[in-house]
Amino acid sequence: MLDSRILGELAAIVGADNVLTEKQDMLCYSYDATQMEFLPSAVVHPANAQEVSAVLKLANREGFPVFPRGAGSGFSGGALPKAGGIVLVTTRMNRILRIDTENLIAEVEPGVVTELFQQEVEKLGLFYPPDPASLKFSTLGGNVAENAGGPRAVKYGCTKDFVMGLEVVLPSGAIIRTGGETYKGVVGYDLTKLLCGSEGTLGIITRIIFKLLPYPDAKKTMLTIFDSIDGAAKAVSAIIGGKIIPTTLEFMDYATLQCVERRFNLGIPPEGRAVLLIEVDGDRDLIEKQAGQIHAIIKPLGLVQFRAAENAAESEQLWKVRRLVSPSLRDINPDKTNEDIVVPRSKVPDVIRRIEAIQQKYDVPIVNFGHAGDGNIHVNVMIDKQIPGMPERAEGAVKEIFQAALNLGGTMSGEHGVGLSKAPYIELELSPDQIGAMKAVKHALDPNNILNPGKMFPGGEGTHAAG
Amino acid sequence: MLDSRILGELAAIVGADNVLTEKQDMLCYSYDATQMEFLPSAVVHPANAQEVSAVLKLANREGFPVFPRGAGSGFSGGALPKAGGIVLVTTRMNRILRIDTENLIAEVEPGVVTELFQQEVEKLGLFYPPDPASLKFSTLGGNVAENAGGPRAVKYGCTKDFVMGLEVVLPSGAIIRTGGETYKGVVGYDLTKLLCGSEGTLGIITRIIFKLLPYPDAKKTMLTIFDSIDGAAKAVSAIIGGKIIPTTLEFMDYATLQCVERRFNLGIPPEGRAVLLIEVDGDRDLIEKQAGQIHAIIKPLGLVQFRAAENAAESEQLWKVRRLVSPSLRDINPDKTNEDIVVPRSKVPDVIRRIEAIQQKYDVPIVNFGHAGDGNIHVNVMIDKQIPGMPERAEGAVKEIFQAALNLGGTMSGEHGVGLSKAPYIELELSPDQIGAMKAVKHALDPNNILNPGKMFPGGEGTHAAG
Repeated sequence: MLDSRILGELAAIVGADNVLTEKQDMLCYSYDATQMEFLPSAVVHPANAQEVSAVLKLANREGFPVFPRGAGSGFSGGALPKAGGIVLVTTRMNRILRIDTENLIAEVEPGVVTELFQQEVEKLGLFYPPDPASLKFSTLGGNVAENAGGPRAVKYGCTKDFVMGLEVVLPSGAIIRTGGETYKGVVGYDLTKLLCGSEGTLGIITRIIFKLLPYPDAKKTMLTIFDSIDGAAKAVSAIIGGKIIPTTLEFMDYATLQCVERRFNLGIPPEGRAVLLIEVDGDRDLIEKQAGQIHAIIKPLGLVQFRAAENAAESEQLWKVRRLVSPSLRDINPDKTNEDIVVPRSKVPDVIRRIEAIQQKYDVPIVNFGHAGDGNIHVNVMIDKQIPGMPERAEGAVKEIFQAALNLGGTMSGEHGVGLSKAPYIELELSPDQIGAMKAVKHALDPNNILNPGKMFPGGEGTHAAG
Repeated sequence: MLDSRILGELAAIVGADNVLTEKQDMLCYSYDATQMEFLPSAVVHPANAQEVSAVLKLANREGFPVFPRGAGSGFSGGALPKAGGIVLVTTRMNRILRIDTENLIAEVEPGVVTELFQQEVEKLGLFYPPDPASLKFSTLGGNVAENAGGPRAVKYGCTKDFVMGLEVVLPSGAIIRTGGETYKGVVGYDLTKLLCGSEGTLGIITRIIFKLLPYPDAKKTMLTIFDSIDGAAKAVSAIIGGKIIPTTLEFMDYATLQCVERRFNLGIPPEGRAVLLIEVDGDRDLIEKQAGQIHAIIKPLGLVQFRAAENAAESEQLWKVRRLVSPSLRDINPDKTNEDIVVPRSKVPDVIRRIEAIQQKYDVPIVNFGHAGDGNIHVNVMIDKQIPGMPERAEGAVKEIFQAALNLGGTMSGEHGVGLSKAPYIELELSPDQIGAMKAVKHALDPNNILNPGKMFPGGEGTHAAG
């Protein structure tokens, strides 16, 4: 699709070593954490905003699509080159430019790995709370583009809540700064937040200014087991109503518990039907007091077991229950569809019950766990793709699960985004006028539709200039 | 400008009683907290989104501009009908629709007065932190449109940080929902945050879903006086570095102190050069501990006086110093230009020194106070408009103050917005490409430029269809 003249121009921009065109070199840029795969025409690795800008200007002139990509850890196909064209990888831009300990801000390039950034700021006594499950390999640019969440979001918010400013290359190739280095600022439209979560469709992020916090004094982990899902859900509201906002309120349903117990024998009591893994952080004295308060608050709600860690090693033991979920799921079936619906937290028991009914109807095993504090549930439909009819049944189940979340005042996705995998369903959630307004914004900034076409909105891939 | 046929159509939409056309009836909708004044052609008071939609459709068809207005408490002329046309007042839409104590959310109409809303949620043990100085009369819709801040922003954030979802009438008349009732949600672009702070140029807000918090257990107020501005600024960073994020960190400079002391004789020690009014909230035991920690942290930084309130009455006494600032300013000169620049908080002493030099250069008295925790300083240039040349000197000073904030990595406005008053300066802060991207978004959603034309971007008022 890209002729040698265009490839030559790309090489002139980023250097010949930073353009890949051989299939075997490009394979690892053709997939993400979904099971989809699309081979691009070329892969480029620009070193800075100027090179990104030149690539985008070329793409507009020649009419080929550009698919920005960080580590490729996404769960929605957002970085995949469905329409051909080039994948633009941001991982060469991987410097932490500064950490300002006085103003508690950091400026980074998009290719910095999330956990590495956390470790660097922690060395200075600072804290970057967003903790997507992929943090060991996902990059900050991807986290921003997808507005990544994580267990700590209930107290601290998602990635977007820590982004103060960006340097972005717009689809036109224009390099702009958005936001800034101040905690407040109301001059002009908030392009920063518009770009966060825009899934690489409105601009390519080349620098990020993050807000940081002082690293919490201490933390305390509690593993709590309830005799019903309703008890666990009531516990969440009761704790928050008791003026305690935990750092994490991780939830596991009965199917998840059974999975983990079968494989790892952790001694979960047989009457346990739901787990809440609770962590509080902050002042050392306060968290001990809060642990006592939490125990008192949740005791009447069908509490079967309460274990509080006295030190880091014990905390790690309690977290094991949560960390062993993923490895044990494959015992049910080899293939996983991982959705991440959200409902208002009081509706968690309702949606779990509806999912149980959907599971019966479609005869597919479903395992639910996730972030109960913000009602964000990871719904895992476990299938074997080799069994005829099972993938189709799973698809039917997923659509009904989305609809159940929406009927309860929720959303189809709290963390993963729309990308390719939810684009066919977006009209379940957004009205034609909402989609119209979003498409108008997209068209205003990317009239030739060269940047990540075909994502988020169904049927968008055909409208770029000549790709 | 509006003929009787159009006025008749407006009356048919909102009811004849809700259309004002007499000068004496419209006067109170012709000004705001700036000293600007523009008389509209008509004022309409719609009752709901459907009526707002019908007005906007009529405006598009007939080509007249529409200026949305809440309580008119803005500091930037954002609600003023500079280009003629109609003022659309949202104050009839003033219902609190629900307060959900389980999920900690509330749904309101835009005309609810901020303080009234705070009082209603407090009755249920809940907390809506944003506290603009105008909260006794400003409306929530206006707070959202301007992204209002306030003293508590350093800990809790600004209005935008509490907006989860909106019902908005787009300039086309389409009624859309944005965001939702869940804490997380990444389906589609974040139109919610785009609309927050868009100053009524992208849509008219007709419903707001707010996030709430549990009401803090207790609070503790401390009045601290330093022998230098640098000491006070260092205290701010040292407290936050000490892992304490106070609810408020209000700052007053020497000129402000002199003003208050001259008029009210509060017994501020003569060696005092800067005040920090500090408040912490949260767990009752924790805040007592934090008060002790704060005292220890700031003692070596030139602390001249430290007073901690032991009860609500004493707290009110300490707040008096801050509350008496505004009434005492007019002793200097009768007319005030109130700007609200922001700098990274470590740069507060630098910007204060630059403002002192600017004050000398232009020979106009300047008084600085504000929110030191987020570097947001209210710069009050006190003039007498009757003195020939003084208003011009003040204008020169203001422009240099903006430039000083920008040179230090700051912004022209942290809370007030651009509106009319800062539109002439916006190119100091934003690049042509940034403004281009913002105008492209505006044009995409409001191609006829009927909604609040002439605001934010200079020279925009002439481009609406036929107004």
